[in-house]
Amino acid sequence: MRRLSVYLHQLEVLLQRGVARIASPELAAYTKVGAATLRRDLALFGKFGHRGVGYDVLDLVHTLRIILGTQQLWPTVVVGAGSLGQALLHYPGLLGRGFSLVAAFDAAPAKIGKAINSVPVYAMEDLASLVATRGVRLAILAVPAEAAQTVVDELVGAGIEGILNFSSPGLIVPPGVHVDNVDITGQLEYLAFHVGKTRP
Amino acid sequence: MRRLSVYLHQLEVLLQRGVARIASPELAAYTKVGAATLRRDLALFGKFGHRGVGYDVLDLVHTLRIILGTQQLWPTVVVGAGSLGQALLHYPGLLGRGFSLVAAFDAAPAKIGKAINSVPVYAMEDLASLVATRGVRLAILAVPAEAAQTVVDELVGAGIEGILNFSSPGLIVPPGVHVDNVDITGQLEYLAFHVGKTRP
Repeated sequence: MRRLSVYLHQLEVLLQRGVARIASPELAAYTKVGAATLRRDLALFGKFGHRGVGYDVLDLVHTLRIILGTQQLWPTVVVGAGSLGQALLHYPGLLGRGFSLVAAFDAAPAKIGKAINSVPVYAMEDLASLVATRGVRLAILAVPAEAAQTVVDELVGAGIEGILNFSSPGLIVPPGVHVDNVDITGQLEYLAFHVGKTRP
Repeated sequence: MRRLSVYLHQLEVLLQRGVARIASPELAAYTKVGAATLRRDLALFGKFGHRGVGYDVLDLVHTLRIILGTQQLWPTVVVGAGSLGQALLHYPGLLGRGFSLVAAFDAAPAKIGKAINSVPVYAMEDLASLVATRGVRLAILAVPAEAAQTVVDELVGAGIEGILNFSSPGLIVPPGVHVDNVDITGQLEYLAFHVGKTRP
């Protein structure tokens, strides 16, 4: 699944560059996956590259979007309109990849009623009604770590089913609600470990 | 390695909350790792929890930081001072986790010479000399996707050994240089896939 998403992202970059066809070893090199693994992954969905011709990039993008469920548009909210939340509201490419940021939420009265990159900022009290009326299932969490669990409980109460969590690890959610953590410091630690191992 | 970083992050959160000891099933639940896996991971480094007492949180944080190489301070630069770069310059907790943001770089003359959250913004031409004088080995890349490869070539030329990449997948670097991708849209796709699978 993670690999399919990586293939899709790379294929979309290629599509923007005007690349119409790509051979499996090339796509494998871009995505740092073994060519045999890549061919096996795509063959599972009936996609076979042709020797000397490769894969049709547009066709593969279309297929992967259907598999990943992003051929539909997912209305998504950003919770926390601090510097990270604001950056996410400006983040390019979400719309082109199937996500529409329909609202932001913040606790600070000064921010409520404003718009960031044309996305309106609401008070947390408006969450449940907006989630219901707009059919929102996904939230991006960018609140301070100490507020994260309280806000997550509110998100779950409002009917949110998936949370992309930039705030704090170790969030507790009921079964059926999905959390995926973006651990920026953790990834930097991982990188530092490898750099230190290569040349102490 | 990824798991050790996840344990460390969670233990640091617990430490800030004043938790002195933690049992392996509790830490395992927070980090979504099996308790047996967690015990085995930590036992590899000579750390054994005691029945009914658990692990000493501070001791474990200290040990994990040594293993991960973050007991030393890594001077790090942010390249690209747009909205995401600015958010990263405000990102809390990097310093406490072993990373010091010493400089930002941007191509826009209007930003150069200013400071963002007390971090000075330099022109790209100053990169190589700053990397050399400050001993910088890590860079966080937050430039527009279309500029990413050109900037990466400059980073590598300046002696950067590890790149945390927010810009674009498929970057090409020479052997010995490490890239770790933060793929925000990819993680959101992954989340949407699981949400869609749970309730179509």
